Amino acid sequence: MEKTVIGVDVGGTSIKIGAVSGREVFGKTSFPTPGSDVEKIADEIAHTINKLAVQTGAELVGIGMPGIIDSEKGRVVYSNNIAVTDVPLCEMIKARTGFASYMINDANAAALAEWKFGAGSGTQNLVMFTLGTGVGCGSVINGMPPASGQTYLAAGGHIIVREGGRKCTCGSRGCLEAYASATALIADTKTRLKKQTSLLTGKELNAKVIFEAEEAGDKVAKAAVSKYISYLAAGIASVYNLLFPEVFVLGGGVSNAGKKFIDRVTQEVRTKIYSKQDADKIIIRHAEMGNDAGIVGAAVYAKMREKQ
Amino acid sequence: MEKTVIGVDVGGTSIKIGAVSGREVFGKTSFPTPGSDVEKIADEIAHTINKLAVQTGAELVGIGMPGIIDSEKGRVVYSNNIAVTDVPLCEMIKARTGFASYMINDANAAALAEWKFGAGSGTQNLVMFTLGTGVGCGSVINGMPPASGQTYLAAGGHIIVREGGRKCTCGSRGCLEAYASATALIADTKTRLKKQTSLLTGKELNAKVIFEAEEAGDKVAKAAVSKYISYLAAGIASVYNLLFPEVFVLGGGVSNAGKKFIDRVTQEVRTKIYSKQDADKIIIRHAEMGNDAGIVGAAVYAKMREKQ
Repeated sequence: MEKTVIGVDVGGTSIKIGAVSGREVFGKTSFPTPGSDVEKIADEIAHTINKLAVQTGAELVGIGMPGIIDSEKGRVVYSNNIAVTDVPLCEMIKARTGFASYMINDANAAALAEWKFGAGSGTQNLVMFTLGTGVGCGSVINGMPPASGQTYLAAGGHIIVREGGRKCTCGSRGCLEAYASATALIADTKTRLKKQTSLLTGKELNAKVIFEAEEAGDKVAKAAVSKYISYLAAGIASVYNLLFPEVFVLGGGVSNAGKKFIDRVTQEVRTKIYSKQDADKIIIRHAEMGNDAGIVGAAVYAKMREKQ
Repeated sequence: MEKTVIGVDVGGTSIKIGAVSGREVFGKTSFPTPGSDVEKIADEIAHTINKLAVQTGAELVGIGMPGIIDSEKGRVVYSNNIAVTDVPLCEMIKARTGFASYMINDANAAALAEWKFGAGSGTQNLVMFTLGTGVGCGSVINGMPPASGQTYLAAGGHIIVREGGRKCTCGSRGCLEAYASATALIADTKTRLKKQTSLLTGKELNAKVIFEAEEAGDKVAKAAVSKYISYLAAGIASVYNLLFPEVFVLGGGVSNAGKKFIDRVTQEVRTKIYSKQDADKIIIRHAEMGNDAGIVGAAVYAKMREKQ
């Protein structure tokens, strides 16, 4: 029987916890992230872990956390979303629960979940982009997310697709996130709407309405979506050329916004890769694990580390 | 005692073969690549292997080859440099020598050599760029170059650093190679020389003389070198954000052309990465394995595969 592991997915707005067996999640609980009050974060996570442990017999914990994670020491080096620096979270959880925990960053946790049970199941190498407010990116290469020693960061949303280009939230210029996030799509559409009226004039913008207007033939939406897809495809082509992964997984709101979105991106990536005779090797799939990806992936990581 | 393995480095202009023990290469031989005559390529490689095998007792062969390599079947899927498609090279070598061989692409072979014995020794993850006529790129991630199944390609020189930018030899636009190869540096300098006289006017251009002129304060050279370094740094920063490798290794002619070249690139990369508070984690080193990298790396790969 599959061993049950408790998965913790720490986000900027909420913390989700569940007992994970295989790809199934039981007893899922969610509560608002208590700001950057580290003691309170640890208390509330530990409280839920202890309850779930009694219910399920689980004795191992996996934690997914945004930012730079030193997995060897179980330490959050730096997390922008939670606004904390140098937190020995695994030790704090151990002190409150008695259980060992392993921590990895959230984007790689999601990639591990898709790799183990979802859209990349059965592959050796996978890269996942989450197209939302920002562009998240996690990967599994030769059986594990890449790391520097055992310190994890996954900032593939900040690969530079236009040196010297648009200012990004990270302070650099030309990052993929500055072109391929929902935020970027909306901002680009707004700029175009100042010069040209459109079906979108006066509407509240989000990725879905922009793609709908594009499908209705609206010129502003068509220009914005076309630019969006070309930059996203440039980012994916870059990663393909570098890493040659068997599958790309796209998640996040934008990936559901347009009809045939995945097909269109795939076609455009095929025109941009180095080995164009190999175009049919480009495989891009929708994420399959949904909101449970973080919890499941954190549990997958804990199990992998425990075996080492 | 280290087992001796024969390493073969197939290039567009020459084929180098040697007996490899640890990082040492014995009995090194080199001969011109017989065009794209596949039978002749196999005959000449096998002839040298048989001679070296008698001398050293080696019974295992590693082959590094440019292009897309199906390592499971020992097949060259496609090689642009040698202009061949679908060649079962390992089988052809076996028929002529009796020895098993394992093949990987040349850029990943060089990266394996640097990872095992050179500038990245002791690391888990390394990315290497070779800055020459083109931009080569190989990597080792979690103990092995990344692959699609067991098919290898390493075209990280074609990550897109400027979507819609300069036309690249691969047919795409905006690739790193179109900005950060010696060829690109020379072409950019030539374009600038049409508009402005300089210390370089009338000279035969190569990376070395351009960097020398830059160090002498020449304006044209300064502009060209500054642009070169900013694009190279964008490419390295992209890869860092995505993969978080412990070390980057730079080889090829350009990496030796300028004083403090590595330091300057390192400084520029630090301004472009996502996690700027982590700037001191950017480590860029000169390649150490020189011309033997291909031979040694091919042998390293054969040994790793034989152990599996």
